[in-house]
Amino acid sequence: MDLVEKILQGDTRSAARLISLVENGSGEATPALKALYPHTGRAYVIGVTGPPGSGKSTLTDQITTQLRQMEKSVGVIAVDPTSPFTGGAILADRIRMQRHSLDRQVFIRSMATRGQLGGLSRATNDVVDILDAMGKDFIIIETVGVGQDEVDIVKTAHTTLVVAVPGLGDEIQAIKAGIMEIGDIFVVNKADREGADRTVLEIEMMLEHSESDSGWRPRIFKTVAARGEGVEALAQGILEHREFLFEEHGHRRKGRDRSRWVFRGLLQERMTSRVMERLVAAGGLEPLIERLARRETDPYSAVEEIMEKCGL
Amino acid sequence: MDLVEKILQGDTRSAARLISLVENGSGEATPALKALYPHTGRAYVIGVTGPPGSGKSTLTDQITTQLRQMEKSVGVIAVDPTSPFTGGAILADRIRMQRHSLDRQVFIRSMATRGQLGGLSRATNDVVDILDAMGKDFIIIETVGVGQDEVDIVKTAHTTLVVAVPGLGDEIQAIKAGIMEIGDIFVVNKADREGADRTVLEIEMMLEHSESDSGWRPRIFKTVAARGEGVEALAQGILEHREFLFEEHGHRRKGRDRSRWVFRGLLQERMTSRVMERLVAAGGLEPLIERLARRETDPYSAVEEIMEKCGL
Repeated sequence: MDLVEKILQGDTRSAARLISLVENGSGEATPALKALYPHTGRAYVIGVTGPPGSGKSTLTDQITTQLRQMEKSVGVIAVDPTSPFTGGAILADRIRMQRHSLDRQVFIRSMATRGQLGGLSRATNDVVDILDAMGKDFIIIETVGVGQDEVDIVKTAHTTLVVAVPGLGDEIQAIKAGIMEIGDIFVVNKADREGADRTVLEIEMMLEHSESDSGWRPRIFKTVAARGEGVEALAQGILEHREFLFEEHGHRRKGRDRSRWVFRGLLQERMTSRVMERLVAAGGLEPLIERLARRETDPYSAVEEIMEKCGL
Repeated sequence: MDLVEKILQGDTRSAARLISLVENGSGEATPALKALYPHTGRAYVIGVTGPPGSGKSTLTDQITTQLRQMEKSVGVIAVDPTSPFTGGAILADRIRMQRHSLDRQVFIRSMATRGQLGGLSRATNDVVDILDAMGKDFIIIETVGVGQDEVDIVKTAHTTLVVAVPGLGDEIQAIKAGIMEIGDIFVVNKADREGADRTVLEIEMMLEHSESDSGWRPRIFKTVAARGEGVEALAQGILEHREFLFEEHGHRRKGRDRSRWVFRGLLQERMTSRVMERLVAAGGLEPLIERLARRETDPYSAVEEIMEKCGL
């Protein structure tokens, strides 16, 4: 429990070690995660999502600077959805946010998992808990806004930022449209480019046609993150949304939403692994796969059969 | 079983109806999918992936034209990973590949699911089976190459095309690097743009450092899909890879890989749904979520408890 104690005291190395265990997907991390869990639920989680090239990292960097000026500690999780195939985060930590690298109140981590379906979001969640338990006031999760897993990840944040850029093609506009529902705040970054006002207008129009059950009216900010322009106003916007959530008790509702999602994801992962392990141990998996490949049975019947054997 | 018979005879409307059932995620589709399964495994599956704006749709359109000229029937599945939030594919079928819309040998469908983790890939798989059973010679799956689910989807194709474009930013180059491992064929599209040769060179260099366990040396093609340039050579490249797989018995190996992946995904989905239903029916879910949100228990212990009750 030495590791847990050190993490609770805010020790960066210990946190990094536990995160590596989480990423490896071994059960080794579980006892520590259990022990840390009662100390979680205090950090405020910000999700940042948008298409590749929209400047999410730079924006995250700038928001971190703003939060540090308010003397808040910050954890940053950069989720790299492509890494399952390389086994390591491609945009390495060292090229990210270099100017915060000497600030002990900022913890930055790129996430990579080669796990099964859902593995990335489960691991990201564990890292949120670790940073939360180590006392970070704010946690920023940054991820490309395509892919069900990735969007699920930011959806569970308290405040979700959707980043757009002027002048990207139609396909990217479509991606933006697809994540309109999860944005509490919209950022038109690189707003010195031609067409920024049109992009703002387009977002406004889309928002008019969408409903919100939270009572929050999403806000739109223009930024040029590379020069720090508009970032202070954006940070204020985030804090306003935070105030709103506290007043509306939505903070707790978001907490329950996240608990529900975490529970289901973990249940799914653990159950599947257990059943697959048993199947392998009983020598049943390979013959089954062979029968499926030969079309002697179908996946639906095979799954029903297994579930029946497990009494489910 | 009328629906199944009609699909086996190649009826487009019936296939579309079953696909809608699959997308709704209801169990209603299962009996038909079971009945169709013995008739699957004949289609050749091509995966097309790449960043937003790389021209995947245009390329898919052009490959379809090439295959039609060889008198092959074609099914196209455009996977839109953002749609979980809108409940409908954003890039609607009607704006896709309009020139094939009157060709009865071409079936085009955009996929959308709002399901849980893994739901998109499971549904896409079911649609592959449906198009396969209705007799399509080739099935092209087109998807944005970020997100674990989406990459899993194309990874199970017989031939996987990774599309790049010259002159995109560093972040997109990084995404390309992340999916190098799954490319059987690389396409540098919009090759009339500046930097096309450099992009080809970059891919060549990356390939030199990667290993292949299949014995296939990935090939690189330059295309300008919007004008149809280079597409004939690309189509030939796809057919050569197909020949290679047949000779190496890899076709069957890919089939087993896919069966394994489909089985696990389905097992995961069905088991989780069953256990969650039981938990809800017993009135146990909401109190559990509340305890989690209050940090009176942790997700790991909660999941272990449930699994123990289920005898797992």
